[in-house]
Amino acid sequence: MTTHLPPTVTPPIRILMGPGPSDIHPRVLEALGRPTVGHLDPFYLQIMDELQGMLRELFRTKNRMTMAISGTGSAGQEATVLNLVEPGDRVLVCVNGVFGMRLADMAGRAGGEVTTIEKPWGEVFSADEVKQALERVKPNVVAIVMAETSTGAWQPIEEIAAAVRETGAYLIVDTVTALGGISVEVDKWQLDAVYSGTQKCLSCPPGLAPVTFSDRAVEKILKRKEKVRSWYLDVSLIANYWASDRVYHHTAPINMTYALHEALRIVLEEGLDASFARHRKNQSALKAGLAAVGIGYATQAGRELPQLNAVKIPDGVDDLTLRKALLERFGIEIGAGLGAFKGKVWRIGLMGYASRESNVLLLLAAMEQLLAEQGHKFTQGAAVAAANKCYVSR
Amino acid sequence: MTTHLPPTVTPPIRILMGPGPSDIHPRVLEALGRPTVGHLDPFYLQIMDELQGMLRELFRTKNRMTMAISGTGSAGQEATVLNLVEPGDRVLVCVNGVFGMRLADMAGRAGGEVTTIEKPWGEVFSADEVKQALERVKPNVVAIVMAETSTGAWQPIEEIAAAVRETGAYLIVDTVTALGGISVEVDKWQLDAVYSGTQKCLSCPPGLAPVTFSDRAVEKILKRKEKVRSWYLDVSLIANYWASDRVYHHTAPINMTYALHEALRIVLEEGLDASFARHRKNQSALKAGLAAVGIGYATQAGRELPQLNAVKIPDGVDDLTLRKALLERFGIEIGAGLGAFKGKVWRIGLMGYASRESNVLLLLAAMEQLLAEQGHKFTQGAAVAAANKCYVSR
Repeated sequence: MTTHLPPTVTPPIRILMGPGPSDIHPRVLEALGRPTVGHLDPFYLQIMDELQGMLRELFRTKNRMTMAISGTGSAGQEATVLNLVEPGDRVLVCVNGVFGMRLADMAGRAGGEVTTIEKPWGEVFSADEVKQALERVKPNVVAIVMAETSTGAWQPIEEIAAAVRETGAYLIVDTVTALGGISVEVDKWQLDAVYSGTQKCLSCPPGLAPVTFSDRAVEKILKRKEKVRSWYLDVSLIANYWASDRVYHHTAPINMTYALHEALRIVLEEGLDASFARHRKNQSALKAGLAAVGIGYATQAGRELPQLNAVKIPDGVDDLTLRKALLERFGIEIGAGLGAFKGKVWRIGLMGYASRESNVLLLLAAMEQLLAEQGHKFTQGAAVAAANKCYVSR
Repeated sequence: MTTHLPPTVTPPIRILMGPGPSDIHPRVLEALGRPTVGHLDPFYLQIMDELQGMLRELFRTKNRMTMAISGTGSAGQEATVLNLVEPGDRVLVCVNGVFGMRLADMAGRAGGEVTTIEKPWGEVFSADEVKQALERVKPNVVAIVMAETSTGAWQPIEEIAAAVRETGAYLIVDTVTALGGISVEVDKWQLDAVYSGTQKCLSCPPGLAPVTFSDRAVEKILKRKEKVRSWYLDVSLIANYWASDRVYHHTAPINMTYALHEALRIVLEEGLDASFARHRKNQSALKAGLAAVGIGYATQAGRELPQLNAVKIPDGVDDLTLRKALLERFGIEIGAGLGAFKGKVWRIGLMGYASRESNVLLLLAAMEQLLAEQGHKFTQGAAVAAANKCYVSR
């Protein structure tokens, strides 16, 4: 074998302001590289317990079955669907972006009889729209995305959850981009299966998926007639490892657990309400700055997620040229549009550690430079001035 | 909320000589904590290409579809099964330990009609035994474990693979504990779907699963009538992200990719043949040392894996007491027995970076101390002397 080895990985330093991964907190990155122990080491089992405790605080739940799935957010998504949906179950999926579509795809693979209701990209569902569908479809399971990462839309959940609960159906909620950035109340809203990811508002690298299941969801899972269609994602098996008997299931991603442990400590040190307020504050500055140079939102007014801003690319500005220059000249990553928004929208993340005043100001200053280069008309300095006005008025 | 935060993670320093995770190479741990970039960053895409190239060298294959699944080894295992097995496929699974049993479980969940053949724990299958089953069952898919982590048995693959290929069936091979420690020849042996893990002989934390699929396996997958039963593990979708079009599937575990990249560099720097020889050498010293204090193997003679030694716990020695003392007084982790071997067997790993002369000597010295404390009869110093003799005679 004539091996020509590549050099060791030397990553460029980026400011991650896309739809995720977001900026990793330096303390999290440092925790990631701490010495690995065995997955049944008494020390590791204690870390798992602590992790579960902190996840319960974050999800605002007492659910016993609260843990991290050994995969990225999509693995958590599929874990909720594959476990809750049995072949023949009627599943209602609310689709207003990529991640709703994915829920419908997954529910079909689980053997569910899937019905979707749809809204245009950027819009959210009203409680009445969901109620009408509940009456028509009479689903066993309902799935909806709280923070649609493809459109930046903030879907209100509380009233919809109450309506679903009234019918006896089980509700799956996607909080991948929501958790840590906006209020998620699993117990108060009586949600049945909720999943998230580490690489959004938790400022942790991708690789684990926090999930929580209500007691009634667990009951449905334990009564299944057919085995879950994935052994790896079968939460009744995974839960035996997280529970006190510690039955071996698979080798947990030890170092990722260290990183998430530190990430949760950081979020809870700040406090959830303080974190939500910070996300709102930085969004309002970004929004004011963008408005000052004529850039508006692609998301339904009033439903823009504080942590993910889907904004319209101005006429005459080339998407790729601008994003490439942002990355190469400033090290800033923002996200392209997906699906219906491809080429029309930028997705600017202000998630977790990335939601900082410095990031907002630097991005706006850099955007002014690059927009001017592309001949976009606006008053130079207007974006930064408008943002600063928001911060000064604190 | 009255949060009582746990302190930051401060792991004890362990010497990992169990069935995995094994000792992580310091260079790998350091690479893990390097700055995170986006999963579509041009830099990251290049790292993925390099990773694929190195994985192909390790698997000794030209297979285009060679990549890392975003989960632990078990996710790779299920990815091969769920993709290759279609509902109604006849699947023959060879079971001689935990991981064969798991393959059978997964094949059932995939909708396969599963037939198992079995051998006692610690033994391997002969080519004739498999040939007879092939004639009887006429399977579409066959699955077998090359390095059974629960028993330390080294299953010869080449002749069995030829027999399976002759029938036209597809062969899945588990190389989780094999890869990097013993010879795996994907192209030469014409294997169809092969999976591994990062935390065994690659000296990398758990969290990714290297996999490779032959062109004919890919053809079978692309012709499926029913969608793969997991979206997350659907390799036809995952491959679009690894291929030149880079279609977004899920957010890859960026930092784990850095770690695996460095781990593969280390293995290929040493060279595969040199690595295999090192594993054999250290095993022979361990084996001689253990024999000198009356400890023998639970695995069929001649089929003991160099990287994983399943040895019989001597009569009168308490399993838990000894393993606890090894961990607490020496920081050494060895593995307990699983299933049929529970309480009867220790599993001593000498995998990757952990397969070092220092580890062998320290373990034997510590074992002598602890065995003496438990009243086990042997000549003090005999284990270390026997091992040293192997090294001196180099």
